[in-house]
Amino acid sequence: MKIAILGGTGNIGKGFALRWGQKHEIIIGSREVEKAEAVAAEYNEVLAGYGHKAGITGTDNQTAAEKADIIIVAIRYNQLGPVMEMIKPVIENKIIISVVVPMEKNMCYINTSGKHQIIPIQSKEFNTEYFCFSMPEAGSAAQEIQKMLPDNAELVAAFHTVPAKKLANLEMELDYDIGVCGNSMYSKEIVFGLVRDISNMRPLDIGPLETAAMIESLTPLLINVAARNEMKDVSLKFI
Amino acid sequence: MKIAILGGTGNIGKGFALRWGQKHEIIIGSREVEKAEAVAAEYNEVLAGYGHKAGITGTDNQTAAEKADIIIVAIRYNQLGPVMEMIKPVIENKIIISVVVPMEKNMCYINTSGKHQIIPIQSKEFNTEYFCFSMPEAGSAAQEIQKMLPDNAELVAAFHTVPAKKLANLEMELDYDIGVCGNSMYSKEIVFGLVRDISNMRPLDIGPLETAAMIESLTPLLINVAARNEMKDVSLKFI
Repeated sequence: MKIAILGGTGNIGKGFALRWGQKHEIIIGSREVEKAEAVAAEYNEVLAGYGHKAGITGTDNQTAAEKADIIIVAIRYNQLGPVMEMIKPVIENKIIISVVVPMEKNMCYINTSGKHQIIPIQSKEFNTEYFCFSMPEAGSAAQEIQKMLPDNAELVAAFHTVPAKKLANLEMELDYDIGVCGNSMYSKEIVFGLVRDISNMRPLDIGPLETAAMIESLTPLLINVAARNEMKDVSLKFI
Repeated sequence: MKIAILGGTGNIGKGFALRWGQKHEIIIGSREVEKAEAVAAEYNEVLAGYGHKAGITGTDNQTAAEKADIIIVAIRYNQLGPVMEMIKPVIENKIIISVVVPMEKNMCYINTSGKHQIIPIQSKEFNTEYFCFSMPEAGSAAQEIQKMLPDNAELVAAFHTVPAKKLANLEMELDYDIGVCGNSMYSKEIVFGLVRDISNMRPLDIGPLETAAMIESLTPLLINVAARNEMKDVSLKFI
């Protein structure tokens, strides 16, 4: 399959390119064409080290989307509007995969005055950082994207819980579960296949697009779990 | 510790009573006092079978809350208002643990007409059931409860991902993670201890109450995972 990774020069894009580049044709899309070409060459080199002759290429986001059958949208939530508008004319009859998560970093002012002032951590008011899912008007980033698609493109939300560093490290087995949302079983089955192409990953059907908020929420949740419990590159498994 | 379980005659209440009844004093609260007394006797009998002489008692929700130091709110979201109003006068200086999840069961009408009609599952339009987190005005059930508390009660949100059946089966090891949210580290540490009292469970700090929506969302997510992937009594682990 021909897979475009929009925002493919980022951390998560690197991992997808390296994992899928061994089997599929990968096109890196970016706002900066030269950067896309440079990282494509870098990814090819990494795969060559593993004995794979990959033909990963880099170009602008629109050309990448035009050339591919499957388009991974791996950009920041606040860049969604312009990118979707740009690719809309070239994605009819294609499958769009959203990895996008709308989230915000907040400062929480915790008032710890009260009965527990004897406990050291409670003896002063303190600030703490955390991330929260920031629900857009449509309910989720996926549902926002749905509104920007041509009628005959099919949207799937997936891969929100992939730890980028581990994904980009081909030595790592990724024994994790990936929640997949979408209204078309045909498209979801194709994404299930892409999940299984990554060693040990298991795809799980979560439901229609209306359920996407719950899997997008997992990204800020994982960041908090890692930051507050001395864990690293955390993902999750349903057992 | 004296722990009241409001809504303690339900599935999840049974598990908490059996797991904690071996170590703590448990008071089952219910709208129906006779039912609370009956299940308390039943739980004592179960624990007697394991050689524990537990003194679990049953009463109405307000009396249970009044007698306890820690109050588990394990009721349905739509019962929250009247119950919180009833217990408000008797929970000053106490720790409240919310297990409450606002969620809705929806029918999703999936339009599968389009280019993929050749695929059997796509050849007709079909209905599918799923659950979604239903965000309340305050952002989460926990934040709604926070507004109904006296100033000097401390709220912790936790235990949303415990599989009730496995919790109530003392033969089962529960090798799962429990996300814990709250603004007071003192209260959270106490809840961490209650998590650790259940075999193999690991507490994870998620952040202040503002992060509760993300752990409440896990309940409908788990229901969907189970229902759509032929899994049973699913929970999760962060790895």
